[in-house]
Amino acid sequence: MNRKLPLIALLTIAVSYISSAQNSPSIIEDFKPSTKNQPGKEYPQVNSQGYARFRIEAPAADSVRVSLGLGGRGGTKLEKGEDGFWVGTTEGPMDEGFHYYHVNVDGGTFNDPGAKNYYGSVRWESGIEIPAHDQEFYALKNVPHGKVEQILFPSPSTNTSRRAFVYTPPGYAENPNKKYPVLYLQHGWGEDETAWSNQGHANLIMDNLIAEGKIEPFIIVMTYGMTNEIKFGGLRNFDITPFQTVMVDELIPYVDKNFRTMADASHRAMAGLSMGGMETKMITLNKPDVFEYYGLLSGGTYAPEDIDKEDVKLIFLSCGSKERPERIKEATEKLKEAGYPVASYISEGTAHEFQTWRRSLKEMAPMLFAK
Amino acid sequence: MNRKLPLIALLTIAVSYISSAQNSPSIIEDFKPSTKNQPGKEYPQVNSQGYARFRIEAPAADSVRVSLGLGGRGGTKLEKGEDGFWVGTTEGPMDEGFHYYHVNVDGGTFNDPGAKNYYGSVRWESGIEIPAHDQEFYALKNVPHGKVEQILFPSPSTNTSRRAFVYTPPGYAENPNKKYPVLYLQHGWGEDETAWSNQGHANLIMDNLIAEGKIEPFIIVMTYGMTNEIKFGGLRNFDITPFQTVMVDELIPYVDKNFRTMADASHRAMAGLSMGGMETKMITLNKPDVFEYYGLLSGGTYAPEDIDKEDVKLIFLSCGSKERPERIKEATEKLKEAGYPVASYISEGTAHEFQTWRRSLKEMAPMLFAK
Repeated sequence: MNRKLPLIALLTIAVSYISSAQNSPSIIEDFKPSTKNQPGKEYPQVNSQGYARFRIEAPAADSVRVSLGLGGRGGTKLEKGEDGFWVGTTEGPMDEGFHYYHVNVDGGTFNDPGAKNYYGSVRWESGIEIPAHDQEFYALKNVPHGKVEQILFPSPSTNTSRRAFVYTPPGYAENPNKKYPVLYLQHGWGEDETAWSNQGHANLIMDNLIAEGKIEPFIIVMTYGMTNEIKFGGLRNFDITPFQTVMVDELIPYVDKNFRTMADASHRAMAGLSMGGMETKMITLNKPDVFEYYGLLSGGTYAPEDIDKEDVKLIFLSCGSKERPERIKEATEKLKEAGYPVASYISEGTAHEFQTWRRSLKEMAPMLFAK
Repeated sequence: MNRKLPLIALLTIAVSYISSAQNSPSIIEDFKPSTKNQPGKEYPQVNSQGYARFRIEAPAADSVRVSLGLGGRGGTKLEKGEDGFWVGTTEGPMDEGFHYYHVNVDGGTFNDPGAKNYYGSVRWESGIEIPAHDQEFYALKNVPHGKVEQILFPSPSTNTSRRAFVYTPPGYAENPNKKYPVLYLQHGWGEDETAWSNQGHANLIMDNLIAEGKIEPFIIVMTYGMTNEIKFGGLRNFDITPFQTVMVDELIPYVDKNFRTMADASHRAMAGLSMGGMETKMITLNKPDVFEYYGLLSGGTYAPEDIDKEDVKLIFLSCGSKERPERIKEATEKLKEAGYPVASYISEGTAHEFQTWRRSLKEMAPMLFAK
C-alpha cells in the first residue's frame, strides 16, 4: 500500500474499483440464475445484457479464476469476499447461447459446483446459457414431445456395444405403420453422443418445428464419433475408417432394423458440427450410395470436384458470423455454379459454439427430405 | 522440526510415514482406473482389495480432501507432491459397488476432475466404482440390449413437461403386437430420474436377466420424485399428494398411451429406494387399485394393518446388511403370518448405497409379474 496517499484518495480508489468490478453503471443489475444451473443453485447468473457473474466458495484458496470471459484475455478473475465466496463478473457481455467453461482453483481445474456439466473439450465441463433473442425455437414448450432413446448397438469392429441416442418424433408410437427418414447427426471434437440433445436441444428444436408444421417428422441418430485414433490426440493423421465402419456397417443396419425407417439413401442424411462435419464430408464422399443429404455445420465445405455423385439432394453449409463466413459463401457459389442443390446459413453474432449449431439445425431441418 | 533428533531418526520416521501412507505392505499395488472415470483419466484408481486412491492437481492449494473414506472419519486427506498433484489412499477398503463423493479444495466443494458425475445429495457428485465380486450381473455384455428412452410427458398439475426414462426390453421393436407389464421405479432423496440407469445400471441388469432367461421382459419407468415440497429441504412435513398426482394421473396414463403396456394393476409394480420406498409405500396404499406389486428397497416396511387390499401379488422388502436388516426380517415375518405374499432380501456387506439397490432389483425382478 502506498503510504503517501491520504485516506480519502484510498477510499476513492477502493470505491471506484468496487464500482468497476461489480456495479459499473453500464452493467444492468438484473442477474438471474443461468438456466443450465443445477437444481436450486443461485450461481452462476446472467443478466439481460449477456454478462455472466460467478460466485464460488473456497474460503482458504489464494486464487479462483473462471475460464469464461472475453476471448484471449484469460477468463475472469474472481475476488474473494469476507464470507469465503469468490465473486466476479465477465468483463463484457458474452455471445448469446451456450458456453462451456471451468474453474481454476489454486492452479487446479475444477467445475463450477453451481452449474450442470456437459461433455466438451474431452472432459465434463461446466455449462452456462446466455439467453438468446431467438431462444424460443429450442425452448421446452407445451407441445407434443418426441423421445430421446439410448440404444446400445453391437459393434464387432470395436469389440463392444456402443451407445447412440435416437430422437423419435411425436406420433412415432401412435402410428405403428408409418416409416421415417433419418438424419445421422454428429458432435464435434472433444464432445460425445450426449452433446446434441443435452446442450444442442436437438429434440426440442425438432418438437417445436414439428408443432409449427414447418417440417415433416424425421428420426435423428447421434453416436460417438471419436474413434480411438483421435480420442485424446489431435486431428492430424485422422483416419476415418474405424468410425466409418461403425457408422455405415454397424449403426445404420441396427437403426434400420430396430426403428421404422425409410431405409434408402434418398431418405438418409448425414450432418455434423466441426470435427463431425469433417467426418460427414469424408463418409458421404466415401460412401456415395448411403446418403443423399449432406450438412457441414462449422465443419468445412465441399468443392464441386470432391463430389462424384449426381443425385445428391442437398448440400447444407453453415457457420457463425464470427467464424469465417466468407468461406461458406464462396463454396456455396461454386457448388451452385456447378449445379448442385446447395443452401447455406450464417448465424449472426455467434462463433464456433453451440448457438451456431442449434440455429443451423433449425435452418437445415426443413430442407431435409423435402418432396 | 525437532532439531534434537539425529538425521537417521528423521529419515526413519520419514520412510515409515511414506510407507504407511502409500506403500503399506497390507495394500496391494494393483490399482487401476475406476470404471466410472471420464474417458482417458487415470485417477481415481481402485485396487483389488477395495482401496481407492485419488490424485488431483491443485499446485497452489493448501488443503485437498476427498469426502470418501472410512465412515465418520472425515474422508481422506490428500498430500501434496512436488509436481503439484495431491495424492492419497483411503485408510481402509471401501464397500463393494458405487459411491458418491466430492473434493474439498481449500474449503470449497468441487468434483474430482477425473471422475464422471452422478446426481446425488442434491448435486452432481463424483462417482467411483469399487469392483464387486458379483459385478457380472450389471456388466455391459454382448447380449441383446433394450433401450432407455427419455420422454417428456405433459404435467398440468405442475404446469410443465416432466422428464422420465423408460427402459424397453430387447425385442420390443421386433414384436409390435406384444404388450408388457410395467415397473415404476423411484430414486432416493437428493437423486433424480437419471440414477437408476446411470449408477444403478437398471437397463444392464434387465438385459442380463432377460438374456439368461431368468425373467420375462417388462418395461421400467423412472421419473423425478422430488416434488417442490421436499426439493431442497428435508423429509419432514412430507406431502405425497403432488408427486402422487404426477405419477398416477399424468405419468401412468401417458405411458399406457405411448408404450405397449398391459394397463392394469395386476401388471403394474411400484418400487423405490430410500425416499423412493417411502413414496412407494404411500402411493401403493393410497391407490390400491393401481398397483399389485410393491417394492421397498432400503425404504421402510409395510405392517399388515397398513394394507387394505386383498389382491396384492407381492411385497418385496430389502436393505443392506450394514443397514438394519432385522427390521426387514421382522416385517417380513409379520406380513407372512398375516397371509401376504412377501419376499425379502439382505445385501451382504453393503450399506445404504447403490450396490444394495442394484442387487435388490436383480432379486426382485424375477418375482414381478410371475404367472
